[in-house]
Amino acid sequence: MFLLHPVYIVSSSAVGGHEEMSSPFSSHFDFFHEKDTFGENTFEKAEGELSRIAFNFLLNKTSMSPTDIDLLISGDLQNQCVASSYGLYTFGIPYLPLYGACSTCTEGLLVASLYLQSIENNAPHYVGVVTTSHNSAAERQFRTPLEYGAERSPTAQWTATAGGAFLLTQKTSDMLPSPDAPYRVRIVYGRAGKVIDGAIADASNMGAAMAPAARDSIRHFFQNTQFDIRDIDAIVTGDLGKIGSALLLDLLKEDNLDIIDIHHDCGICLYDEAKQDAHAGASGCGCSASLLSAMVLPRMLCGQWKRVLFLSTGALMSPSSVQQGISIFGIAPMVLLESEKQI
Amino acid sequence: MFLLHPVYIVSSSAVGGHEEMSSPFSSHFDFFHEKDTFGENTFEKAEGELSRIAFNFLLNKTSMSPTDIDLLISGDLQNQCVASSYGLYTFGIPYLPLYGACSTCTEGLLVASLYLQSIENNAPHYVGVVTTSHNSAAERQFRTPLEYGAERSPTAQWTATAGGAFLLTQKTSDMLPSPDAPYRVRIVYGRAGKVIDGAIADASNMGAAMAPAARDSIRHFFQNTQFDIRDIDAIVTGDLGKIGSALLLDLLKEDNLDIIDIHHDCGICLYDEAKQDAHAGASGCGCSASLLSAMVLPRMLCGQWKRVLFLSTGALMSPSSVQQGISIFGIAPMVLLESEKQI
Repeated sequence: MFLLHPVYIVSSSAVGGHEEMSSPFSSHFDFFHEKDTFGENTFEKAEGELSRIAFNFLLNKTSMSPTDIDLLISGDLQNQCVASSYGLYTFGIPYLPLYGACSTCTEGLLVASLYLQSIENNAPHYVGVVTTSHNSAAERQFRTPLEYGAERSPTAQWTATAGGAFLLTQKTSDMLPSPDAPYRVRIVYGRAGKVIDGAIADASNMGAAMAPAARDSIRHFFQNTQFDIRDIDAIVTGDLGKIGSALLLDLLKEDNLDIIDIHHDCGICLYDEAKQDAHAGASGCGCSASLLSAMVLPRMLCGQWKRVLFLSTGALMSPSSVQQGISIFGIAPMVLLESEKQI
Repeated sequence: MFLLHPVYIVSSSAVGGHEEMSSPFSSHFDFFHEKDTFGENTFEKAEGELSRIAFNFLLNKTSMSPTDIDLLISGDLQNQCVASSYGLYTFGIPYLPLYGACSTCTEGLLVASLYLQSIENNAPHYVGVVTTSHNSAAERQFRTPLEYGAERSPTAQWTATAGGAFLLTQKTSDMLPSPDAPYRVRIVYGRAGKVIDGAIADASNMGAAMAPAARDSIRHFFQNTQFDIRDIDAIVTGDLGKIGSALLLDLLKEDNLDIIDIHHDCGICLYDEAKQDAHAGASGCGCSASLLSAMVLPRMLCGQWKRVLFLSTGALMSPSSVQQGISIFGIAPMVLLESEKQI
């Protein structure tokens, strides 16, 4: 649905681990921890620390304190989303935990937008959205501990050790002036995705499992808005990777939608294919979140992209459901981002 | 925060398993499956079927079809919330998955309320909220499989095999007339809770771990609204059980709030203490959800309770975090429910 009032992205941050240091977009990241441990003694705690660091960068960039922020929305891939709750609780901000698998970044932006629609007074209101993933924590939870040295399937994707944080507000007057960015970015439309059964039961082929959900969301957007492919500068999907992206392009052709020239997948973009062997690409809540901050927003803030359909993609499965042979369901919430000239 | 526009609960349903058949509130449940399997071959799938049944009752009671409903909000205790996504995907409704542990029912009502604030047109808009838990699925995930016959600690609570479903709308004109209920119920206020470290690391003592979060939310409510204890007919907490409830009453006395005469805890109320040995009480997302439908709403619809502060309580921990010795954090989102006379 189109939002009654657009919502503005005040600031963002991206944090990564060792592998992300070699990303083509590394220059737009705010912080890397080259050992992936972030100073903690377990990978699970490391992810919590990653989320805390990402949110801290947001506070520092905006010179805000936690008490300035109404609501913090977060989620991650760990069972019961403990990375987010343990990483962010020290800020003491009222907290709305989500679990949208790797789609949580877009789901969070959507729920933050709903909250900001709901307030009518002159005081400034801010909402934070943070999502993360950690390769070592995810691999041992969903597949096998890395120490086992299991060979990865060619269709497998590499869960990013990464996170992104975003600060949203209602009014441009509540934003800091950004002298170095001619544009600012607003969210004007959002939609929760439908759960789609991609009929894939292989936890090492998530891109294919999620592609039908991304297709459903993109098709819905063009069928239910006045926009045409030519009105959109980029359609950015979360982490379909090479296999899922190829499948998405094929599926959309059946709907007479050819998006090949404007499609970018964070799972393909995060790593440098020539130098980094991520197999089918990157994945994880932190993949689309970090590249929203390090790839999409920089291009919008300089005016290169004016209108972007951004949809993180999530695979709704658990290790138990995979062991029980249930197919992996996909979901793809989306938001429409627009850049507008700062006055 | 107080909602700009109150949101109305159109209808609700409660579903339970074997143990719930003996609940003092069983006459207000819509359906029981006496074997807890709900016709499925795993407990995990059984919980998905439980959520599907709960939502189906809602559709039947309101003579609605899934296409009438804008958004479905759901969550459960299973890793990656698969019970909800697998149980509800067949309805084909845009889906917003949450993970608030046992607090998900109230979190869902809050997010549904935000969504319904955000729409300004004359078409009717409806949002569904469904939350569930399943004893056998939860025990083997969080503690030990029931087949091991492990002895339960006296502080342990019994995860309810139960669920509740709720349909919310913006306008009373979009509600069915209810000739047998003199009142209807609206949500007028909501707040996401803060994550509070209860300094308890024992996964068999969740009530104590969550009580400080419930205290924080209740104290915030009375400090930041014009309401006094005497204005509220009931404060209903989710699943603190006997130990957590006693602790909550003690903690609130330090804040000069004596709620003993109006406090009801779903974890204490769900089972009949004289006949059912649940140790410290019931717990699970389905505990507060089923009793909101089977205890709170019936008392409000007949006018016995006019104003109810309802707060499900969640323990934000995972089996890994408990094994790693991290303490269990609590959260207690809340909504204020009011009954109003049907004209």
